[in-house]
Amino acid sequence: MIKAVFFDLDDTLVETTKLADMARRNAVENMIRHGLPVDFETAYKELMELIKEYGSNFGKHFDYLLRRLDVPYDPKIVTAGVIAYHNTKFAYLKSVKGARKVLLDLKKEGYKLAIITDGDPLKQWEKILRLELDEFFDDVFISDYLGVRKPHPKIFEKALRRMGARPEESVMVGDRLYSDIYGAKRVGMHTIWFRYGKYANRELEYIDYADFQVRVLEDVVEIVRGLNREEAEERPDTEVHAD
Amino acid sequence: MIKAVFFDLDDTLVETTKLADMARRNAVENMIRHGLPVDFETAYKELMELIKEYGSNFGKHFDYLLRRLDVPYDPKIVTAGVIAYHNTKFAYLKSVKGARKVLLDLKKEGYKLAIITDGDPLKQWEKILRLELDEFFDDVFISDYLGVRKPHPKIFEKALRRMGARPEESVMVGDRLYSDIYGAKRVGMHTIWFRYGKYANRELEYIDYADFQVRVLEDVVEIVRGLNREEAEERPDTEVHAD
Repeated sequence: MIKAVFFDLDDTLVETTKLADMARRNAVENMIRHGLPVDFETAYKELMELIKEYGSNFGKHFDYLLRRLDVPYDPKIVTAGVIAYHNTKFAYLKSVKGARKVLLDLKKEGYKLAIITDGDPLKQWEKILRLELDEFFDDVFISDYLGVRKPHPKIFEKALRRMGARPEESVMVGDRLYSDIYGAKRVGMHTIWFRYGKYANRELEYIDYADFQVRVLEDVVEIVRGLNREEAEERPDTEVHAD
Repeated sequence: MIKAVFFDLDDTLVETTKLADMARRNAVENMIRHGLPVDFETAYKELMELIKEYGSNFGKHFDYLLRRLDVPYDPKIVTAGVIAYHNTKFAYLKSVKGARKVLLDLKKEGYKLAIITDGDPLKQWEKILRLELDEFFDDVFISDYLGVRKPHPKIFEKALRRMGARPEESVMVGDRLYSDIYGAKRVGMHTIWFRYGKYANRELEYIDYADFQVRVLEDVVEIVRGLNREEAEERPDTEVHAD
């Protein structure tokens, strides 16, 4: 019997890739508006390269962008980037289509729900609280806070223990085959790969670890129900034999 | 003849003290809503003490607040504080009453305008750009970026040099008698003390350095005009004698 359903956060419950791209474009545009002497395409391409090299949580993207473009440091231009970036994230933050309905349906049917996510705890909590998703969840597990990253088994095992669910009583839903699906399967959980965002066609070498694939988040509910029905059908049989 | 008028930023052009207090109150309220097990008055008082000890630009107010209250670290509660704080600052940031009118009037009458402010360059630029005040100013001088703080003469001298104005051709407007008024007077500028916000009755030992006092920012325009008239009246006399 399925007791608990676990969700990844970025690009599973919350729009991340789309929003980050909008935010970066608006940042570059506002930097140019406030004096960055470079055309949009050049600056945007340089910013994307920089993010690839330094990671998306690097704190000095816009400072480094000026250095890479050989533009003298100017706090006005850097601030113009930071403001536009935050304004965009602030104004457009939203949940993935169907996310609230899925959470509500699962909650109504009595499943325990939790989030298992990588990333900076404050940034991850910010998304959860701004969208007021926290009411749905019994707990939130953030890898960086535990000192490991998905697919490390420690975070999945800890989440299962705290939810009081055995792996076979649990389902993991996520957009990354390696972090989410391979990670959860390795500890024995059921897995649903959400083919969404930039990973929809990536890390396919781990595809065998996905029990199910969905392209629409709402389909998760039917799969979880199905897993429970299968077990319900198996159990009475066993009981009949035991008679 | 007056050529340039310089303004302090915080609590002279931009509401700072009021906004910071609103933001802190909302932060504490949201932390309690998300699980901080302490009553509002206790938490708020502790936060104010902490800010007094560590300064308002310290980056870990809410982390330290938990420590001081003997509450175990919880990224959810810290984030609840950070979000409410930023939401408030974002939603309520505004210029001081009359600021835009004063700037517009002085600009129309041909004065050069600049800001001379202490503080973190990114935070100061953020206020200027969010309020779109930058169009009014020929330049912005931020002390932390120059490695000094007001009332250090270096920042006033640099601002005068860059504006091409002699001290006696310049006026400084600010809410702090020590940083703004004493600082500007020491290099020979005219000074207008804006009695506003938490410094309206403080640092009175420097009151002799204020040429003028105003409680309403709009009065600055008339004072600047008056300074120019005085000189205009003096000059023809001199010319008469020279005949």
